[in-house]
Amino acid sequence: MSKVFVNIGLSLDGYMAPEGMTMKNPGYKNWGAKWGALMTWLLNTQYFRENLKFGPGGETGPVNDLVRTTTERIGANIMGKRMFDQGEVAWPERALVLARESAGSRDIRIAGGADVIQQYLNLGAIDELEIALAPVFFGGGRRLFENLREPGPQFRIDKVLDGSAATHLRYVRQ
Amino acid sequence: MSKVFVNIGLSLDGYMAPEGMTMKNPGYKNWGAKWGALMTWLLNTQYFRENLKFGPGGETGPVNDLVRTTTERIGANIMGKRMFDQGEVAWPERALVLARESAGSRDIRIAGGADVIQQYLNLGAIDELEIALAPVFFGGGRRLFENLREPGPQFRIDKVLDGSAATHLRYVRQ
Repeated sequence: MSKVFVNIGLSLDGYMAPEGMTMKNPGYKNWGAKWGALMTWLLNTQYFRENLKFGPGGETGPVNDLVRTTTERIGANIMGKRMFDQGEVAWPERALVLARESAGSRDIRIAGGADVIQQYLNLGAIDELEIALAPVFFGGGRRLFENLREPGPQFRIDKVLDGSAATHLRYVRQ
Repeated sequence: MSKVFVNIGLSLDGYMAPEGMTMKNPGYKNWGAKWGALMTWLLNTQYFRENLKFGPGGETGPVNDLVRTTTERIGANIMGKRMFDQGEVAWPERALVLARESAGSRDIRIAGGADVIQQYLNLGAIDELEIALAPVFFGGGRRLFENLREPGPQFRIDKVLDGSAATHLRYVRQ
């Protein structure tokens, strides 16, 4: 059966997105630079640059391989309204059921935002939690880990990949 | 000159201590078990067990070596009132100046709690930030990273040690 996984960038102080991150207000509190620092590990990879037609070049190596593997395993994405409103495709209700039908033998990524990830963590529905932890401080914004029910979700460390712009932490549900 | 460093355990959801962690109320919200899960990486090491007279045994290897190196580099500890009230020795005002005098050629550890670490981060006084990130969720408690001023502190990834009970992240000030 398809695995349900999360793969996101996280600031060292626990934020998925800096305060006031909206396309309508690109200059607010320097959010663009903060988000760029968070995502440097991804933006610099050859695979990502090719996919988004950013032109040739980009880093190869283990982080690039990780980005390719992660992208290619996705059979369906689930995301919330806020992320949709920022320009992505949304899923309606019964998202996980529909995503399982759609994903086939591939996997289902809970793409975000934070509130959607929190809901799926509280449901115990997330099999794998992949975090690219970047050495950057946002000071405010959307926290990833809030509103978790007790007892909290149970994960064990599965793998760690040490990149220069982020530490890639992979946890698997126990 | 002495380096100023932080070396702490952190839950995956960003807490240094679970909610209601006081010696007066050991059964509150299962905080003892949570704290034990946070500190498994430390409590299991041979060096720590020897130091606290827990008896023979314990893990050797890279995490044990890390605990020894970290402990032996400390020339002075700075900690806050809450941590002192829990049974440790406190430092008065002008703590960093006095600690530098006292530490000699060794280093100064900002031991905590969270509010003290936040104050020193905001002062730009922390040279090295060492975090043992444990795969445990507290759901509430004392957050490590709050109340940080803008622009936030600037660190780069220095080293990552992949343990089974925690990921040992080492950041150095830029």
